[in-house]
Amino acid sequence: MEKKQDQTWEYNGSEEGEDLILFQSRFDTYVNLRNDQTVKAVILEAPEWVNIVALTRDKKVIIVQQYRFGVQRLTSEIPAGIVEAHETPQQAAVRELREETGYTSNQWISMGYVEPNPAFLTNKCHLWLAKDAKRTHESSPDEGESIRTLEMEPQEIEKEIKSGRLRHSLSLTALSRILNVWDFR
Amino acid sequence: MEKKQDQTWEYNGSEEGEDLILFQSRFDTYVNLRNDQTVKAVILEAPEWVNIVALTRDKKVIIVQQYRFGVQRLTSEIPAGIVEAHETPQQAAVRELREETGYTSNQWISMGYVEPNPAFLTNKCHLWLAKDAKRTHESSPDEGESIRTLEMEPQEIEKEIKSGRLRHSLSLTALSRILNVWDFR
Repeated sequence: MEKKQDQTWEYNGSEEGEDLILFQSRFDTYVNLRNDQTVKAVILEAPEWVNIVALTRDKKVIIVQQYRFGVQRLTSEIPAGIVEAHETPQQAAVRELREETGYTSNQWISMGYVEPNPAFLTNKCHLWLAKDAKRTHESSPDEGESIRTLEMEPQEIEKEIKSGRLRHSLSLTALSRILNVWDFR
Repeated sequence: MEKKQDQTWEYNGSEEGEDLILFQSRFDTYVNLRNDQTVKAVILEAPEWVNIVALTRDKKVIIVQQYRFGVQRLTSEIPAGIVEAHETPQQAAVRELREETGYTSNQWISMGYVEPNPAFLTNKCHLWLAKDAKRTHESSPDEGESIRTLEMEPQEIEKEIKSGRLRHSLSLTALSRILNVWDFR
């Protein structure tokens, strides 16, 4: 792996950390050239992710509800997942939408990508818009997933956000491109 | 730690993982009551975070640029940091803004909180708006930080996003509450 340098930080080696299922952890050491201090940074090597804003013909948004182990409660989010090694981000988006919800679409529009957390995560999260999405299949979540799918009007999305059920920063980033999700401005 | 249950997942114990500097890792085991499959989930226990949208009197946004070890390049973000054990989120926001940028404000407005990633992170990220922010102090970054502070017009923020320098999902979530950051709608 090639390490990029900048004017402040000199890369000074890496140690491998634990396998964290979703990530491979790594510790990188950098020297701050301004003050000669050494910093050890934890890095989580992650595959790329996709998040999907799927709209039905009548502009409802597909929302998935599932129990999340990090926050230990049921959340509302948009469909999302991991880009597998053999996939393009769009292929992953199409697959995840269909697996999680049974919905498919013929109109996929890229909304670019964001970085989940550039401080310690290496990966990108690609944002996709699926228009005119329809339920054409049974959903087929994998064994780590147990998902309920709902169609929500924009006003219901606002309620999900206000009630605190929809707080995932990546869902909110993607939704904010399509809807005016905040009443606070 | 009390583990919450839901209708699908039965909690079946935890193992402690490695100390990851920013996180304490943990592995939780759950049984899916629908199909009896066991799932091992990585959990990263993290302190709460704050992200700050600081606006000057003439509506410029305070942006910090720094080299980020996760993505190995210079990024543009809004000021942010960790809520220390003795602090309220607002105290952390005030301290981080001053330490990172030297700016202070007398008008702090809570914008609630989001979840950085409910799947594996336990924590909240509190969003604060600081109005009429002024540079009143020297910045005092800690040894792991080397930060450049800029004031940007909303159009410049749009350019930072389009150019790809500003991609942090938490910065984008916070900024989307204040500015129309997307031209794609």
